[in-house]
Amino acid sequence: MMDRRDILALTALGTLALGSGSRANAAAITPDTASLSLHGRQLHVLDLTHKLTQAFAFTPGRLSMEAVQGSGSKVGMALNRVAIVEHTGTHLDAPRHFAPDGASVGDMPISQLIVPLVIIDIRQKAGKDRDARVMPDDIIAWERRHGRIPAGACVAMLSGWDPLAMMARYGRMSPAERRKSPGFDAAAMDMLMKRDAKGIAVDTMSLDAGESMPDFPVHLAWLRSGRWGLEGLTNLDRAPASGGILFAGVAPLDQATGMPARVIALY
Amino acid sequence: MMDRRDILALTALGTLALGSGSRANAAAITPDTASLSLHGRQLHVLDLTHKLTQAFAFTPGRLSMEAVQGSGSKVGMALNRVAIVEHTGTHLDAPRHFAPDGASVGDMPISQLIVPLVIIDIRQKAGKDRDARVMPDDIIAWERRHGRIPAGACVAMLSGWDPLAMMARYGRMSPAERRKSPGFDAAAMDMLMKRDAKGIAVDTMSLDAGESMPDFPVHLAWLRSGRWGLEGLTNLDRAPASGGILFAGVAPLDQATGMPARVIALY
Repeated sequence: MMDRRDILALTALGTLALGSGSRANAAAITPDTASLSLHGRQLHVLDLTHKLTQAFAFTPGRLSMEAVQGSGSKVGMALNRVAIVEHTGTHLDAPRHFAPDGASVGDMPISQLIVPLVIIDIRQKAGKDRDARVMPDDIIAWERRHGRIPAGACVAMLSGWDPLAMMARYGRMSPAERRKSPGFDAAAMDMLMKRDAKGIAVDTMSLDAGESMPDFPVHLAWLRSGRWGLEGLTNLDRAPASGGILFAGVAPLDQATGMPARVIALY
Repeated sequence: MMDRRDILALTALGTLALGSGSRANAAAITPDTASLSLHGRQLHVLDLTHKLTQAFAFTPGRLSMEAVQGSGSKVGMALNRVAIVEHTGTHLDAPRHFAPDGASVGDMPISQLIVPLVIIDIRQKAGKDRDARVMPDDIIAWERRHGRIPAGACVAMLSGWDPLAMMARYGRMSPAERRKSPGFDAAAMDMLMKRDAKGIAVDTMSLDAGESMPDFPVHLAWLRSGRWGLEGLTNLDRAPASGGILFAGVAPLDQATGMPARVIALY
């Protein structure tokens, strides 16, 4: 049922994200908000992360776990060895994913991973057109409302699509349907480079729109410029479009091209 | 060179942490601080995470990586399959590590993972005595200075020891020496339960002091109460002893008993 291009795209990116138009709830971790006091002010936290389950393990061997020691052991300790493809679930794409000499996850300091969060809402057009992309006009519209995109930001696409709903339906889709999912347009990416953005993020499973794969123009140019991406976010509809902070919590694994992450918004 | 107790402890916990008395620098990720504006106030961030390298992979097979696709592929994309024991590097211990029905990492909402940070400095005694523990008196001394430990906190032991320096020396140590590392005393743990702390953290590789292993009294009681731990932190000497926030960034992996983490302090 899958052609070579499908397999390449799925192996590389987890899966395309063809959605149901509704917010992803299948893998929510509840409660997904927290609130606490810092310097006498209330700090709000929102989890932007899908629970990391077999639902993301579209291709065999992408995610497995074996007990090194079970809880039945004398001392009562359980622990597992986890085997996982780096680009599974809500995850970070490090520059090295497409740049052989680029930074690995282990090379990325927190100053790159905790940054201003900008959310560009394309739900209206993505609900009608599964090839919808973040275009320069969408960035201009955001800036008209909120001011210039702050330097060093992570700019996130809110398409409203649900990667898990898509995966459940994947087998029943035509090859043409499978290649349709929203993403960043290359011209919008160019504009974000001029704004000195550090990261781009999507609620689908690919920075590139489905119809651009497997050429990956956005992955190629963005990651090779030393920037990073986040794929498979959720809850972006509940985060502030402007004024918040994103933190991508990834274990700093030496040599890794990507890593499953715990991504939060602070505001 | 290793007896059965050593192997159990090392397999379970990564390694004991017998230190050099100096701050861990071997695996620093620089810059390890960031500063950004939120609601018009400066937010400071400090990375409490060691770089995750083979230096933590004391036992064979604990951490390995194989290329699924190399950067020489036509499209220029590289990605790897990572095999890792959950309790490697700077990592979280979930309740399930010692409680068969306890929460896995995937069950832990961010309201549990972003909490007030309390740092208890025992460097002075740990520098003289490798069996030094966080005792009830250390908690009382902290409270005398900073006020009562806030409910829901993570209480971190700052011993000043360096797990990586210890691992480099492990082969030259006597069996008795290997079983010496600071940790939480069970009576201190009881007191922290009464304070409604949610987590405890250490800059060694075990919540329990070395001489308590492999009975793991603190792991057993603390994790079975539904609480969590962090092992292998660094930079605690640079974080505020009181008034900061800790966030344990762990990918919410279903069923996992622990996970390598990106841990930060906010203040």
